[in-house]
Amino acid sequence: MHLNKLLEEKKAVIDDALRFFLPDETDYPPTIHRALHYSVFAGGKRIRPILALQTAELFSPNWRRIIPPACALELIHTYSLIHDDLPAMDNDDYRRGRLTSHKVFGEGMAILAGDALLTLAFEILAGTKDKYGEYESDYWSNVSPEVKLNVNFEIAVAAGTKGMIGGQVVDLKSEGKSITKETLEYIEEHKTGALITASVRLGALLSGANNRDLHRLTLYARLLGNAFQIVDDLLDIEGNEEKMGKAKGADARNQKPTYVSLYGLEGAKKRREELYKLALKELDDFGDKADVLRELTRFILYRNY
Amino acid sequence: MHLNKLLEEKKAVIDDALRFFLPDETDYPPTIHRALHYSVFAGGKRIRPILALQTAELFSPNWRRIIPPACALELIHTYSLIHDDLPAMDNDDYRRGRLTSHKVFGEGMAILAGDALLTLAFEILAGTKDKYGEYESDYWSNVSPEVKLNVNFEIAVAAGTKGMIGGQVVDLKSEGKSITKETLEYIEEHKTGALITASVRLGALLSGANNRDLHRLTLYARLLGNAFQIVDDLLDIEGNEEKMGKAKGADARNQKPTYVSLYGLEGAKKRREELYKLALKELDDFGDKADVLRELTRFILYRNY
Repeated sequence: MHLNKLLEEKKAVIDDALRFFLPDETDYPPTIHRALHYSVFAGGKRIRPILALQTAELFSPNWRRIIPPACALELIHTYSLIHDDLPAMDNDDYRRGRLTSHKVFGEGMAILAGDALLTLAFEILAGTKDKYGEYESDYWSNVSPEVKLNVNFEIAVAAGTKGMIGGQVVDLKSEGKSITKETLEYIEEHKTGALITASVRLGALLSGANNRDLHRLTLYARLLGNAFQIVDDLLDIEGNEEKMGKAKGADARNQKPTYVSLYGLEGAKKRREELYKLALKELDDFGDKADVLRELTRFILYRNY
Repeated sequence: MHLNKLLEEKKAVIDDALRFFLPDETDYPPTIHRALHYSVFAGGKRIRPILALQTAELFSPNWRRIIPPACALELIHTYSLIHDDLPAMDNDDYRRGRLTSHKVFGEGMAILAGDALLTLAFEILAGTKDKYGEYESDYWSNVSPEVKLNVNFEIAVAAGTKGMIGGQVVDLKSEGKSITKETLEYIEEHKTGALITASVRLGALLSGANNRDLHRLTLYARLLGNAFQIVDDLLDIEGNEEKMGKAKGADARNQKPTYVSLYGLEGAKKRREELYKLALKELDDFGDKADVLRELTRFILYRNY
């Protein structure tokens, strides 16, 4: 099957599930629920959930059990974008072709909308069959509460101060400064890498991967995560503005040190290629089963939006 | 034992546990961890954790198993204060006699500090014995993963858009407007009430309370939660500024509708007295065992700071 069609199908599955998990826009108080829908259904590519689903498919056809935690990861990603766009952070007016949350709903509401998505993510992660029949039944019939708590713990660590928030903190502190290679690597590995790694690992952990496979996939995810941040930096210079729905050049405007500012455009592209090859290498032992994941990796690292 | 001494002892237990669960201030990246310590150890009374512990003591002497989720509730409460104090929300410069987080660390870092505490709360809630030996061993040896997931779910709902955040949203939207009695009641029940109710319920749920007792304590907690918000409103007019460590009159300054602005000072006090008596009534069946909880209720509702 052509990758684009397959991604569209998986994206539709995730979008349906997100619609199920999110409170209705009209639920009281409606302002906050409108704000949640506005950001969650803003045309995101759902890369993290799809990575989790495709990793799960390496081990089991029952990938539907991964839907709830995959949705939780997407909500954590979305909350981080809402807070990241705030005037006190990156101060972005547009994302995906639309005004950012605080431009539409005001700063106070945008802060609360981010808080709400993070909270909802953990509500979903603790959800039980009687609460979420349709989406939990496959999931719960295959996953023990112990394993689920372990996955929840991993996701919380990945999203916290030793993971995504840590990367965000160092990124924020580095604006307008020259930074070392080590600091840049810390930002890469944490700001984007931590959630990417968690996505891949939860797909494996919930599908009965053995320790050896889990280790391989963790290495794959780390390499992908590092390259992912370089792609973000490259898109801010060479991306398709129309498809991205935002103006390029924000990093330069914010005097943000990036892989490109430290190593130049060619240096960054060379590093992307290296990381791409190293990541693929970790998938070697999975044979044909990993073909979609390979194509997905290529798509993630060489997209122009 | 005198209530103050008992509260001091319980507070010390909670403070020790919070120190155990929080990353060290020097952990990388240090800025965020300093910000977490700054707000978590700012002299909070630990009312929510102590309510959870005292409720648990009605049923079992093994109240130590309640410490991790009680700490999680305190972190959720603290995150809500940090975000609430931001310029886009209540715009408060002082809390508990010290500058608020954003005045010390900047707005971006204060937003991230709130996010981090909320995330850490759910990390603790998903924690396992091998990760948190000292504080998890009692806890885990008595609580099944199923019950734990149920408690986590309840806490997430209480902290979300149908709970605390919902109350915060309506509060924010009501500034400078005249509101109905129903709207004020919604704010009371959600902004403060939801976490208070969750505190009491988790103490009961994790200590083997039967459904009848759980129902009674839920009613008790709702009445206490409603009265709690009235006390907040009263403190902003009649509180001891020195002990509170902040200036009174913020509600009037922000043109915030409160119980006092709607019913007057005497009306608010009369309502507090009514709610106090109704709350105590729900504790009648617990006999002497509930004496400390009764004293604690009186302290919470009639304090001047």
